[in-house]
Amino acid sequence: MQTEQLRILTVSIKRLLRRGATRQLKNIIAKTHMADLSIVFKELSMDNRKRLFKLLEDPEQMGLLLSELEENTFLEYVKQINLSILVEIFNTLPSDDAAELLNMLDEELSDQILSKMQKEESDNVEQLMSYDEDTAGSLMVQDFVALEEETKAREVIEALQSKYLDVEMPFYIYVIDDYGKLVGVSSLRQLVVVPPEKPLKEFMATDIITATPFTDREDVAKLVSKYDYLAIPVVDDDNKMIGIVTVDDVIDILHEAATEDMLKMAGVGEEYVETQTVFRGTRIRLPWLFASFLGGLAAVFILNSFESALGEAVYLAAFIPVIMGMGGNIGTQSSTIVVRGIATGKIDIQDFAKIVGKELAVGTILGIVYGVFIGVVAKILYAAEPFSWSLAIAVGLGIISSMSIASLVGSMIPLIMERFNIDPAVATGPFVTTSVDIVSVYCYFMIATLLIGL
Amino acid sequence: MQTEQLRILTVSIKRLLRRGATRQLKNIIAKTHMADLSIVFKELSMDNRKRLFKLLEDPEQMGLLLSELEENTFLEYVKQINLSILVEIFNTLPSDDAAELLNMLDEELSDQILSKMQKEESDNVEQLMSYDEDTAGSLMVQDFVALEEETKAREVIEALQSKYLDVEMPFYIYVIDDYGKLVGVSSLRQLVVVPPEKPLKEFMATDIITATPFTDREDVAKLVSKYDYLAIPVVDDDNKMIGIVTVDDVIDILHEAATEDMLKMAGVGEEYVETQTVFRGTRIRLPWLFASFLGGLAAVFILNSFESALGEAVYLAAFIPVIMGMGGNIGTQSSTIVVRGIATGKIDIQDFAKIVGKELAVGTILGIVYGVFIGVVAKILYAAEPFSWSLAIAVGLGIISSMSIASLVGSMIPLIMERFNIDPAVATGPFVTTSVDIVSVYCYFMIATLLIGL
Repeated sequence: MQTEQLRILTVSIKRLLRRGATRQLKNIIAKTHMADLSIVFKELSMDNRKRLFKLLEDPEQMGLLLSELEENTFLEYVKQINLSILVEIFNTLPSDDAAELLNMLDEELSDQILSKMQKEESDNVEQLMSYDEDTAGSLMVQDFVALEEETKAREVIEALQSKYLDVEMPFYIYVIDDYGKLVGVSSLRQLVVVPPEKPLKEFMATDIITATPFTDREDVAKLVSKYDYLAIPVVDDDNKMIGIVTVDDVIDILHEAATEDMLKMAGVGEEYVETQTVFRGTRIRLPWLFASFLGGLAAVFILNSFESALGEAVYLAAFIPVIMGMGGNIGTQSSTIVVRGIATGKIDIQDFAKIVGKELAVGTILGIVYGVFIGVVAKILYAAEPFSWSLAIAVGLGIISSMSIASLVGSMIPLIMERFNIDPAVATGPFVTTSVDIVSVYCYFMIATLLIGL
Repeated sequence: MQTEQLRILTVSIKRLLRRGATRQLKNIIAKTHMADLSIVFKELSMDNRKRLFKLLEDPEQMGLLLSELEENTFLEYVKQINLSILVEIFNTLPSDDAAELLNMLDEELSDQILSKMQKEESDNVEQLMSYDEDTAGSLMVQDFVALEEETKAREVIEALQSKYLDVEMPFYIYVIDDYGKLVGVSSLRQLVVVPPEKPLKEFMATDIITATPFTDREDVAKLVSKYDYLAIPVVDDDNKMIGIVTVDDVIDILHEAATEDMLKMAGVGEEYVETQTVFRGTRIRLPWLFASFLGGLAAVFILNSFESALGEAVYLAAFIPVIMGMGGNIGTQSSTIVVRGIATGKIDIQDFAKIVGKELAVGTILGIVYGVFIGVVAKILYAAEPFSWSLAIAVGLGIISSMSIASLVGSMIPLIMERFNIDPAVATGPFVTTSVDIVSVYCYFMIATLLIGL
């Protein structure tokens, strides 16, 4: 189907979904080729995917689109599909997709399905399921070309025309020795330029970057993107090849990793929650807000301890929001820069002092700029009062200390987390803003009571 | 070089850089193959890249590593290299890298370099430079295989062995008609499975996804990742092929796009600033903090207008930080979810009411939970006072209104921005937190004065 036709199809399906025109939709689904339907499906929002999926009847179509659903929706629908159809669906799915989906199901149901699937298929799937979901093992496909060193270029091409006809991405020809160990790699591209009778061992590259099934998936993604590879072979302890991770999966991982980092920094967990139910969305965010709640509580007690000072100088309270706000914002800036720098490899912990020093300098300069601004405002606003000068200075110093501390804390915390192998994104967001809030308010009131002499 | 050797080399270079062992480093550089040096270079932090680059002497090495430097560092070093060496460097660089780097230089210098470069090379580079840096045009390489419809499979392979031997990524064989228009595409993979005498037009696919040189680079990246392609052809108005964008560039774009979104949301501009100077870092962040400053100022005036109420009930001030903090955090959560959902295509503006409604529901429920918590704390803390009940209720309602408003504003703003084609990430961060701060504080004091009757 042409791009233009696909676009029209997508628009029509969206319109019909909006109208709830079930009968027409079923008609279109029946007439549309599966590959096209899958592309249209990816164009839809999660809500529309859900609506469209409800209308499917053919197990093969369901299987293809099932892996494009969001986890909760998937689980919801699986309940409505009966076991024999589920088995049919899982038989048609590629092993890696099947493993990923089965891992989401409860064990009893996934065991039932596996036991009824074709033996060879379920063996593959079970092997993949045994790896943790953050590893290369759970991600690899077992669909690759591996031939022996003595195979001639001509024979490799023959093998591609017969035995390996179904391999989805045969860019690389992996070379194994008599014991099945990975010893080299060649490419489809080299294959067409070498003389037909040349054996693989004479033109293969022996410098191979590999992953193990236990390599973290983000590390695999980094390897692929660093070396500009189209696939990376996965080997076991004996250097035997057990699968490949391809560049299209790597793109998905990079997308997911960036999303996870953003969500973690905002304290929303690491799973994408928009499409989840209100109840689930609430439950996931509740504990993350607790850090902020405890910080707020600490601020209550701090301010409470300054109650007598506040009683004599209520105008001090008017500047609490601006001091907290400026500190919070610059703290978020510093931690975002450092967290993303670590994730993209642009920042190295070795440069700890330099990075933190630079952030502190930026924070202090900006603190001085805005401190002077706000000091002037305070002086003008309370010009008639005898305390206006001390107030202006207290507020100005409050901003400076809040912003410099925020940039210091904001840049240090993620680096320290990284040092101790804790994901810097996960604890940075709420932790930084909350600690900055408490320290800022405390400093401000200390300075104010000292200066105004309360 | 084997992976293990590369790892050792990287570690040694890092150690020598730390020690400042210039002579040994120069020795190593001279002995290391350029491709290996480039891989090691990518492993280093920006600071270490800078240090290592200073030690290079060979123009070819400099060219290769130049494009791995960060913009400021690049500009700094270019100044120190004399013109004839610069021309040599740019002659050896691939056109797309050369165009990207020349675009960073001031026009006078880039014109000088272009005029002294080899004619054919500078023509290519100038064409690429004419496209905006956010477009497919600036990103494409002119290195692709394009043959006519009648070419037989055997002849295609022959062409790959001679004319196209230097093409870096010949996965796809593009097919053009007599007028040079793109009419089909085949792959290296198909080529080895079809009979040698079959002409391209009989096995090519005619359903081609293309980009124009003016297509936004992020849209190109989305096409590649959606269709799992390894490259996308770029065509001009007459459907003539002028280049391809390859999957390795797409990975870089996705990485950059995610970084840009995070930085924009934190209000740090859209350029990665860590490695910039303190002065530049300050200048970039100054205007972004201004929104937060204005918000803080508004809060000063609001609280000032409640001064008499505050004077009678200073304890109200103690709860300002917790009310602002909880609102700010949940607002950031909501906007992060929506911004990322838009970027990954999981959220569609059509579902506006549903998304905002869900966020509002989550915000309100969480507001009630934490409102009750903090109300209880207020009641206990001021148990002895006659106003303790009213205070508890005012503070509780303050949290509920702050959190529900924050989730409403946080989810609405990015959707509205997207609706009006403004990048939702850019204005979301500081705008959301600041408006939430002001509204929260105002609501809290309104409720408090009404309840406590000040």
